[in-house]
Amino acid sequence: MKSGLRKAEGTPASRRRPLVRGEPVVRRTLKAAMRELERVGYGALRIENVAARAGVNKTTVYRRWSTKQALVRAALLSIAERHDVMHVPNTGSVRDDLIALVRRSIALKSSREGRTILRMLAAESPESDLSAIARSIQKAHEAIPRGILQRAKKRGELRANLEPSLLFELLRAACDGLILRSRNVNERFVVRVVDLLLMGAQSPRSRAAARAVRHQA
Amino acid sequence: MKSGLRKAEGTPASRRRPLVRGEPVVRRTLKAAMRELERVGYGALRIENVAARAGVNKTTVYRRWSTKQALVRAALLSIAERHDVMHVPNTGSVRDDLIALVRRSIALKSSREGRTILRMLAAESPESDLSAIARSIQKAHEAIPRGILQRAKKRGELRANLEPSLLFELLRAACDGLILRSRNVNERFVVRVVDLLLMGAQSPRSRAAARAVRHQA
Repeated sequence: MKSGLRKAEGTPASRRRPLVRGEPVVRRTLKAAMRELERVGYGALRIENVAARAGVNKTTVYRRWSTKQALVRAALLSIAERHDVMHVPNTGSVRDDLIALVRRSIALKSSREGRTILRMLAAESPESDLSAIARSIQKAHEAIPRGILQRAKKRGELRANLEPSLLFELLRAACDGLILRSRNVNERFVVRVVDLLLMGAQSPRSRAAARAVRHQA
Repeated sequence: MKSGLRKAEGTPASRRRPLVRGEPVVRRTLKAAMRELERVGYGALRIENVAARAGVNKTTVYRRWSTKQALVRAALLSIAERHDVMHVPNTGSVRDDLIALVRRSIALKSSREGRTILRMLAAESPESDLSAIARSIQKAHEAIPRGILQRAKKRGELRANLEPSLLFELLRAACDGLILRSRNVNERFVVRVVDLLLMGAQSPRSRAAARAVRHQA
């Protein structure tokens, strides 16, 4: 841990020990951060108030998360972890991998906390701190689509000229849009969405005609 | 016009004449309604304030739109009309029809007013008045996807077992999600999204294998 390098600055090591993941104090603090975020929004969130709500000394919170950004990022990450969306599905077929991914993502986004975050992001500009945090979390988990795609390509399940990033961007946008507009996205609906994206809407005849045009060009 | 039936109730016909679409007073009132909606949100919107902002007598506004719902619905409709999203594209190919539809929808949703509405809808519950208004406008324009699909089916462009409502629902959700998350959705991106939805992500080999499984079942 990098913070070890900074230890020799005066206060005893025991007092400066950073909180460790999984500790009850960490869990309580992140939960309090999420509640405060829901209550006052990102702009008005204060680390002091999070600490008070968690019943934790504010210097304890600052020692682990020195900025509001860091604290909120950790709170959002902890929710994502709880919904298992960091875990790369590996079922042996791209269809089932995508269904598993979308199912988890929908469960996260339609949870009370997930909806709160989606609504906040919808209300904020893309230049906002909160949007930057969301993008950074997403970036940190690019291994998930990458893993799914690499295995799918090895199995020859995806067409050669597919833009994989587009597939995932579209899936994510569709999940956001569906959750923001309606209340329930059930299991059957998830399967239909994935199947439409895999199979496409075109008839075999149109597909053949489009291929012929591309070959001529 | 139905209101003709109610005319014989006392006030002279000229004073009771309802405002007609396209009149400058109508345009000014709907624009003012949109500005008020942006400024205070749906809950706090008052017809009196809209009238004052438009420089119109409030009874004139009430005569045409007797409720806040009716006024806001008309304001949202007028924006949709300005972006030509009520017009059914008919280009001769489902691909170009969908590209035209998505292009207009993206232009509407990424306009200043469109973003305001999207964000408001994202913040409101599906049971809210504003969500009900949005659904009613959408319902009133189901002729658009219907028109596109009927012609596409006649031309044999779509696969037989396609769920058309799913295609449009996914497109709409994806547009909402894309606009809410990022800043720019350009023309090239629109084409890529439509092509992915038409072609699907699957390789021809996987497609054939999936068909074989369906035939066996």
